[in-house]
Amino acid sequence: MTTKKVSIFKSVLAADEQFAHSIRKEMSEREILVLNLIGSPGAGKTSLLEETLKRRRFNSAVVEGDIATARDAERIASCCVPVVQINTRGGCHLEANLVSKALKALSLENVDVVFIENVGNLVCPAEFDLGEDYKVAVCSSAEGADKPLKYPHLFHECGAVVLTKKDLFPHVRFDRDLFWSDVDSLNAKAAKFEVDNLSGEGIDGWVDQVEKWLNLKRRS
Amino acid sequence: MTTKKVSIFKSVLAADEQFAHSIRKEMSEREILVLNLIGSPGAGKTSLLEETLKRRRFNSAVVEGDIATARDAERIASCCVPVVQINTRGGCHLEANLVSKALKALSLENVDVVFIENVGNLVCPAEFDLGEDYKVAVCSSAEGADKPLKYPHLFHECGAVVLTKKDLFPHVRFDRDLFWSDVDSLNAKAAKFEVDNLSGEGIDGWVDQVEKWLNLKRRS
Repeated sequence: MTTKKVSIFKSVLAADEQFAHSIRKEMSEREILVLNLIGSPGAGKTSLLEETLKRRRFNSAVVEGDIATARDAERIASCCVPVVQINTRGGCHLEANLVSKALKALSLENVDVVFIENVGNLVCPAEFDLGEDYKVAVCSSAEGADKPLKYPHLFHECGAVVLTKKDLFPHVRFDRDLFWSDVDSLNAKAAKFEVDNLSGEGIDGWVDQVEKWLNLKRRS
Repeated sequence: MTTKKVSIFKSVLAADEQFAHSIRKEMSEREILVLNLIGSPGAGKTSLLEETLKRRRFNSAVVEGDIATARDAERIASCCVPVVQINTRGGCHLEANLVSKALKALSLENVDVVFIENVGNLVCPAEFDLGEDYKVAVCSSAEGADKPLKYPHLFHECGAVVLTKKDLFPHVRFDRDLFWSDVDSLNAKAAKFEVDNLSGEGIDGWVDQVEKWLNLKRRS
């Protein structure tokens, strides 16, 4: 029984790895950077995207993942950027086969960066390769400083950590030094940013990083 | 292939339902109320428990679920309450077989209420029966008012919704009327509370509800 279960799980994963591989190959040929934004519900992923898109430093398209509703896609559409909403109907993470379909539904002519906003969940999405160049961990100061060690997988895997809601530092118990030293202990190489999505403070540094990644991809 | 997958999944679920059933039966015989607290990382579940336990209105024991670390259990232990930490090592939710083992490790003599703090995740834990009397949705104002409709399953299933971090209302974009009307549209019967875990404001109303559930259980 156990053996069967494992072999089936492997075959499902292998099929999904194929989709991830195809996405990565196609996006490399087209020199499109793909970023997979992962964080808890309410971490500020959509607001970070809105602030990023507003700056118009590169041409973007967005894949939105949610269990239900198209609220996030509607917010992104009002930034005049191509967007597709995936509703997982209970699924706790995006998978590459869903992203592959979504990318086919988007017009990628002249697009430089595809942002994938994963389902709000600090756990499961970190396990799944969507063919992205980098995972980006998005975490808010309101969540508390203990999250990196309590949810280590994402922080270990990601190319950048964006700490949102820095405007709340005076109003919440948040040990900033502990947060960043724990992130460092898991992943010293990740790029690190603190932003306030409401005022836009800190967003430019993050957008510089996206542009840096984009230029690296074009040169590779 | 598909058929095998479904049948195996069913058999795993059925085994876990047996554990949930046994927990429910034993806890009913002992007249112990069991509550399953579910919410995003950083929603304030552990702080809500600390404030609840401090009031000593009933004898409590706690099962802590986390992917890694024993930080939450250490916080609860300092409230002088019996506690067991389950580390799921990557698992995104608690399952009844794990809770069953944890309960055996706790001394339940004279205990009135067992609080289970699930892994921080608004999605997957809502799907799993742990033998509890009620699921409790814990959601913070910092997460934004759109969470009930975006993550409907938990809000639909739960016996109570506790909105935490009410002290942040002046500092975050949070449409309180929208939040509660969306909760009502999913679950008009759920008991509803707004609390501030830092000052303790609103906690007494929530603790009254726990006591009410406990008395109902003893009378049934």
